[in-house]
Amino acid sequence: MTSVVKVAVAGCGTVGAALLDLLERHGEALRQRRGVRYQVTRVLVRDADRPRAVSVDRALFTDRVDHFLETPADIVVEAIGGTTAARAVAHGTLVRGRRLVTANKALLRIEGPALDALARAHRAAGATLDFEAAVGGGVPVVRLLRESLAGHGLHRIRGVLNGTTNYILSRVEQGVPFADALAAAQRAGFAEADPTRDLDGTDAADKIAVLAWLGFGVDPAALRVRATGIDASLALEARAAARRGRAVRLVATAVRIGDGVHATVAPRVVPRGHPFAQVRDEQNLIQLESESAGTLTVAGAGAGGSATASAVLADILRHGATNAAS
Amino acid sequence: MTSVVKVAVAGCGTVGAALLDLLERHGEALRQRRGVRYQVTRVLVRDADRPRAVSVDRALFTDRVDHFLETPADIVVEAIGGTTAARAVAHGTLVRGRRLVTANKALLRIEGPALDALARAHRAAGATLDFEAAVGGGVPVVRLLRESLAGHGLHRIRGVLNGTTNYILSRVEQGVPFADALAAAQRAGFAEADPTRDLDGTDAADKIAVLAWLGFGVDPAALRVRATGIDASLALEARAAARRGRAVRLVATAVRIGDGVHATVAPRVVPRGHPFAQVRDEQNLIQLESESAGTLTVAGAGAGGSATASAVLADILRHGATNAAS
Repeated sequence: MTSVVKVAVAGCGTVGAALLDLLERHGEALRQRRGVRYQVTRVLVRDADRPRAVSVDRALFTDRVDHFLETPADIVVEAIGGTTAARAVAHGTLVRGRRLVTANKALLRIEGPALDALARAHRAAGATLDFEAAVGGGVPVVRLLRESLAGHGLHRIRGVLNGTTNYILSRVEQGVPFADALAAAQRAGFAEADPTRDLDGTDAADKIAVLAWLGFGVDPAALRVRATGIDASLALEARAAARRGRAVRLVATAVRIGDGVHATVAPRVVPRGHPFAQVRDEQNLIQLESESAGTLTVAGAGAGGSATASAVLADILRHGATNAAS
Repeated sequence: MTSVVKVAVAGCGTVGAALLDLLERHGEALRQRRGVRYQVTRVLVRDADRPRAVSVDRALFTDRVDHFLETPADIVVEAIGGTTAARAVAHGTLVRGRRLVTANKALLRIEGPALDALARAHRAAGATLDFEAAVGGGVPVVRLLRESLAGHGLHRIRGVLNGTTNYILSRVEQGVPFADALAAAQRAGFAEADPTRDLDGTDAADKIAVLAWLGFGVDPAALRVRATGIDASLALEARAAARRGRAVRLVATAVRIGDGVHATVAPRVVPRGHPFAQVRDEQNLIQLESESAGTLTVAGAGAGGSATASAVLADILRHGATNAAS
């Protein structure tokens, strides 16, 4: 017996397109293993006429948020990025009692708690809010902080959270020029067309603020994160550090101090054997330090369409998933 | 508004005692943050008269399984180990429509799928089955395999799963004699009084079989795991390897090959920079390799009362936990 779950996808960039591909390729396996067919009912794009390399009926594309929200859907995936259209999609989804899955850390930083409250207010109608892909790409750190004891007695969250800058730092330490490393990160789909938010540390700052919200209960919008990014001159330093057997990594940290939380994003020089030094290319690594469980480390693919889309898919499968072995 | 959740704990060894301590120390914080008071209603022990260093009313102790199961409880924690009394507790809990949280990999290997079916059969009455602490101690690998996409397109599970042998290997490579390292592991509460199942690889074999069940859907009881353990002569090899800049680790592996799963536990020699080489003392590290998300690595405290009890507590908090920020 197969039930149908209707999925509307806002955004058809790196993550949105990879998700459509994943749903297409694994659709049959999902139907067999879970008895659920995930049917894409609408795809919101900026330009509905642009040709795209995704195997979705062109009639499903729309460039109007109102049309998108009027389409029947059980789950809405928000993978637009930015905060204007994304906010409209997020609010419109939750007030309709639908499940929202978002990969948007910028939106969550600004109003994660408000979206959470909105989801709770419309819980009875079916609204839920999930955002595994917003931080860590394919690394399930959001799930761990929301659900496991990491949140209990937790005192520090620390990690390499931005795949683009880590990709660049990994390459420049091997002698690749900064501009070439950046261009390669963009070609690989790790960096946005405008990589400013990656390079200046804003992306990592949004992510550590979201993690601090989950782990420490602080308002991510009110949390001040002192952020320093990377640039071509830091790349030269990273190259010099590599020659001395050290590595430079962009490290985001949130520490609970008394009732407050101190958060930073900054390049750090670490010895070659350090866990952070071994985070290569677009990988992410996060350490959760708690009183009772010590340091929990999670690491994996932090950026890229496939890994991020797989985190979105995990959220899609989440509430339907039964309490069972795979 | 505080609701009361009744918890009965079977077993007052390293894990059971650490859990009682955790519930005592964090009870007030749990009440404040979740609005739930976790009330211990019964503790099953082998000898109810033996003095114990836990702050639980002595009247709550019983050494009779039938008395234990007759006590009102919403959640039953099975931390006895072994399979005879543990099986009686597990079955008795689930058929009563109660939530079972177990740390018992030996029981799960023998009848994990049967317990899962029992929990499903009594789901309407409230039965659930959780077992985060059974594998990986404080490392939430069970949760990741049961719920995240790691289970989708997963092709290999590999890890250091036994804290006792890893503790011994970490010590002998620094020159500590095998017997002394083993005694220290026992004193620290990582090894059982009878450490045979740790040393001969049975414990790791049970754990990789449980992970193979979760990740690949195979029956863990039917899965043949070729297991080799460690002994004093291997310790000498580990010491020699360390002098050559290498490390010996007891690695458990399950690989999907066609429709089958190939599983082994064996000592492996790895270079110093390898992730497994950096797993020290009682730490555990698990790598989940999947098509869409690449290699996900999780590492942390793999043994010891506090870490394991914190995984049990995460399971206790699980179904009551709302879909919210911490």
